[in-house]
Amino acid sequence: MLEHGGNLHHAAQRYGIPLQQWIDLSTGLNPQAWPMPDIPASAWQRLPEDDDGLDKVAQHYYAAASCLPVAGSQAAIQALPQLFALNRTQLRVGILSPAYAEHAYAWRRAGFKVVPLAADEIETQLNQLDVLLIVNPNNPTGYRFEPAQLLRWHQQLVARGGSLIVDEAFMDSTPEKSLATYTDQKGLVVLRSLGKFFGLAGARVGFVFAEPDFLHRLADFLGPWPISGPSRVIAIAALQDRDWQARARKGLQQQSQRLARLLTDKGLPPTGGTALFQWAETAHAESIHRQFARQAILTRLFTQPCSLRFGLPADEQQWQRLEKALTELNYMNDCSDALCEVAG
Amino acid sequence: MLEHGGNLHHAAQRYGIPLQQWIDLSTGLNPQAWPMPDIPASAWQRLPEDDDGLDKVAQHYYAAASCLPVAGSQAAIQALPQLFALNRTQLRVGILSPAYAEHAYAWRRAGFKVVPLAADEIETQLNQLDVLLIVNPNNPTGYRFEPAQLLRWHQQLVARGGSLIVDEAFMDSTPEKSLATYTDQKGLVVLRSLGKFFGLAGARVGFVFAEPDFLHRLADFLGPWPISGPSRVIAIAALQDRDWQARARKGLQQQSQRLARLLTDKGLPPTGGTALFQWAETAHAESIHRQFARQAILTRLFTQPCSLRFGLPADEQQWQRLEKALTELNYMNDCSDALCEVAG
Repeated sequence: MLEHGGNLHHAAQRYGIPLQQWIDLSTGLNPQAWPMPDIPASAWQRLPEDDDGLDKVAQHYYAAASCLPVAGSQAAIQALPQLFALNRTQLRVGILSPAYAEHAYAWRRAGFKVVPLAADEIETQLNQLDVLLIVNPNNPTGYRFEPAQLLRWHQQLVARGGSLIVDEAFMDSTPEKSLATYTDQKGLVVLRSLGKFFGLAGARVGFVFAEPDFLHRLADFLGPWPISGPSRVIAIAALQDRDWQARARKGLQQQSQRLARLLTDKGLPPTGGTALFQWAETAHAESIHRQFARQAILTRLFTQPCSLRFGLPADEQQWQRLEKALTELNYMNDCSDALCEVAG
Repeated sequence: MLEHGGNLHHAAQRYGIPLQQWIDLSTGLNPQAWPMPDIPASAWQRLPEDDDGLDKVAQHYYAAASCLPVAGSQAAIQALPQLFALNRTQLRVGILSPAYAEHAYAWRRAGFKVVPLAADEIETQLNQLDVLLIVNPNNPTGYRFEPAQLLRWHQQLVARGGSLIVDEAFMDSTPEKSLATYTDQKGLVVLRSLGKFFGLAGARVGFVFAEPDFLHRLADFLGPWPISGPSRVIAIAALQDRDWQARARKGLQQQSQRLARLLTDKGLPPTGGTALFQWAETAHAESIHRQFARQAILTRLFTQPCSLRFGLPADEQQWQRLEKALTELNYMNDCSDALCEVAG
């Protein structure tokens, strides 16, 4: 299992600080989550039914012709390589790097040759790939690919029987950049998630967009009832709440800009970011991560490259604690940046 | 995808009767479900954490040394054949038949040779099997295997490098018959589910019991966060509610006996059953299923063999409607038992 953000229990134990004192900036989740409605008891009690309207609501929100609801985009990340592996053909899989690490892990585990590619290496390597996997916008770098470029790459891949897979977990703030709308084309697979923008990571709801035949095979592979009944109820309501979505889109953009300004002012200018996080490359990442943790602020540390990801503080008190911690940062007295000295 | 009980939307459409008028006896779910507690919003918002105590609570309730929580036992039914398939060895898989159909479907889809076995064929076929898959108590027949016999079969299989898999989805009313306690032994895998006894099918929580190394490989195959945060909260509380469990065990037994008496009195004596359903073989199954449906009572029709499964009515009004429908059954005027004439 890979390490992820959000593991507060672990941090609380390691640093000996009670759970409730922590500010969790280690994830890229919207801290002002979509507000829960009442959930009918029957949603807990009965088997979820596929024809409850979730497909249609999702097709409308994501502007796509066909979709498969799955238990978070992680479920698709696990399943896609296994589905491709059923053909028992060796494939060369190019994966954007650095990016959300579960992708490369899953393709390698399924027996495929994974080629890690920086964004600017893709164009020249494309003709040697069977599958290209992009995270757009990328996590943690915030790098953005233009739809026109991705569609061009998709054309080139498909001409040779290949596929383009795009993980759009952080796309909700810029829906006009999504490829979901083009997934009626063969060889194009898009993943979306309710976790980040809606702040509903615990619900485990995501969607796969692709041509119907591909989605049928994926559904058969995953089996019936992957999503809990209450999570389906909530997903249907959240995807239809256009007013909340419009407010969230605006609010997150403002908060993310505020975070970027704060980090810049305090000497940690972001290297990239999205509406839900800012990401800063720094050789001092490990030391800074530890200094924050001692003040019960959990950030996400990456070592390849050495960097930190900051999610959005949830309220003014959290903003002030973050500002204080940034002000008190000491880059000199911590001489044990072992991880980053090696990796960075 | 196979057909299952519980598809009320479909029945409502097919018979042109509004959804809310239906009595759903097509599942084996406890109609008096464990009562929902309040769920903290954070369970919806944050990523579920593995160290929330669910493992320990489950190990205590199921009296087993190690377990892996999964998204309903269906998730394990899908994954187990795929996990075995990673070894790329052809296996002969004996599966109790008739039984919950997803098992045979999943093993065949993963490329294995499936041998359907009646309960009394297992003993003589055992030495030709690599994997034996039992549902105990069986669904829909209600057939029960004794732990001593299963453990003997397990010994024989393991001596040749084989495995015994036991799906105990309907075991909660007879915990003393469970093999979960023996799953520290190699080659023994037990599946349990929160859906039936606790009446929480919508929560999608199940458990796999096996030796730790096997569970680690399964966890790696399934990936992180398969269960929603709120479902974990509910599972932890339900598994610890000993008072409710004791009352439910007693109450379900009484209701199931009442159902068996009623069916017998009305000329449909059960062939078998558990605390959560009664099952009746009859050449008129298809006709009876249709006659019930016209009165907005959904039963579960099986054609191999021709039979009906009846879940427990939820309240006195439902009992009375079932009794009335049974009283009015007409075995003569319906001459279109096509499915059952062929299959039975």
